[in-house]
Amino acid sequence: MTDKLKQQLKFLAEVDKMKNIFRQTLILDKSRHENDAEHSWHIAIMAMTLFEYVGFDGVDLNRVIKMVIVHDLVEIYAGDVPAFDVKGNEGKAECEKESADKLFSLLPTEQATAFRSLWEEFEEMATPDAMYANAIDRLQPFLSSYLTEGHPWIKFNVTAAQIYKRMNPVKTALPELWDFVEYVINEGCEKGFVQR
Amino acid sequence: MTDKLKQQLKFLAEVDKMKNIFRQTLILDKSRHENDAEHSWHIAIMAMTLFEYVGFDGVDLNRVIKMVIVHDLVEIYAGDVPAFDVKGNEGKAECEKESADKLFSLLPTEQATAFRSLWEEFEEMATPDAMYANAIDRLQPFLSSYLTEGHPWIKFNVTAAQIYKRMNPVKTALPELWDFVEYVINEGCEKGFVQR
Repeated sequence: MTDKLKQQLKFLAEVDKMKNIFRQTLILDKSRHENDAEHSWHIAIMAMTLFEYVGFDGVDLNRVIKMVIVHDLVEIYAGDVPAFDVKGNEGKAECEKESADKLFSLLPTEQATAFRSLWEEFEEMATPDAMYANAIDRLQPFLSSYLTEGHPWIKFNVTAAQIYKRMNPVKTALPELWDFVEYVINEGCEKGFVQR
Repeated sequence: MTDKLKQQLKFLAEVDKMKNIFRQTLILDKSRHENDAEHSWHIAIMAMTLFEYVGFDGVDLNRVIKMVIVHDLVEIYAGDVPAFDVKGNEGKAECEKESADKLFSLLPTEQATAFRSLWEEFEEMATPDAMYANAIDRLQPFLSSYLTEGHPWIKFNVTAAQIYKRMNPVKTALPELWDFVEYVINEGCEKGFVQR
């Protein structure tokens, strides 16, 4: 076995840790929190399923799927910071950069660069692929929160304005879903899951 | 919201159940069994990472990734049958077919056909894409079993011959990894994790 292949197998064992990075969202039977591996799989199938609704040109679904598969790898060392935790998000970028340095250095250089570029593109949210990937990354926990009676929203006393801001990428990336987003936020307010 | 979009969102909520379909393999810290959502994500990143080693022409990595993302969906109703459980595998195909009928019917017809075709192609293992996808689907639990001291092999009294048979698709799909497969099986025998 070459050193290169050894590096790749070591990386593939290391990323198993994604199964222990827990998020604020619950799985839909409400038995426990969801982890990053599950979330990444779920948004990959969501990207496949909702692709026909993308509201702009230039999205390559194949790149989006690869992007969402690697987009949360840096949380292996940096941890998951809840979207609505303002204090927790301070210093997040620096921490994730250090985590990326550590994790991607396990891979052969060329592959490390390719994986890291996908993650950076996701974070910068400037290309059509990254805009769609980010919209899906926000839609999946939004759907989970709605179907688990507002679990993370209640925990963090989230306001409608915070959710609108967080969900904004969905407005352009998946315009046909925007009515649904508004409906859920309104219902969340009425039921007391979301602060007005 | 159109009826079509409602169907798709219902499907995306239903597939959350993959997070509760537990497999025989453990996650690498040995704290619990791995589930199908995690496994599907793990083999997607494995397909990306090891693509350069594919031993034949005609593999479209983008199709392989989509295939592995959907390949275990039928287990939502059919359950996971351990590869080495001979009795459990009787009637598996019929059970999975019924599960596919139930699950994919949630989707709009055209999308149901597309997803189901990917799953059927995976099962038939006749195309280059399906051959690579199956090799990866076998390599990931093999790697997990090795790194968790033979957990499922010990439980099912698995023999070296059974593992060789199960891992056979790796021989042609990832020939450069075959030495590693043989090394692990030999070590498993020496340590008593695998029956000779």
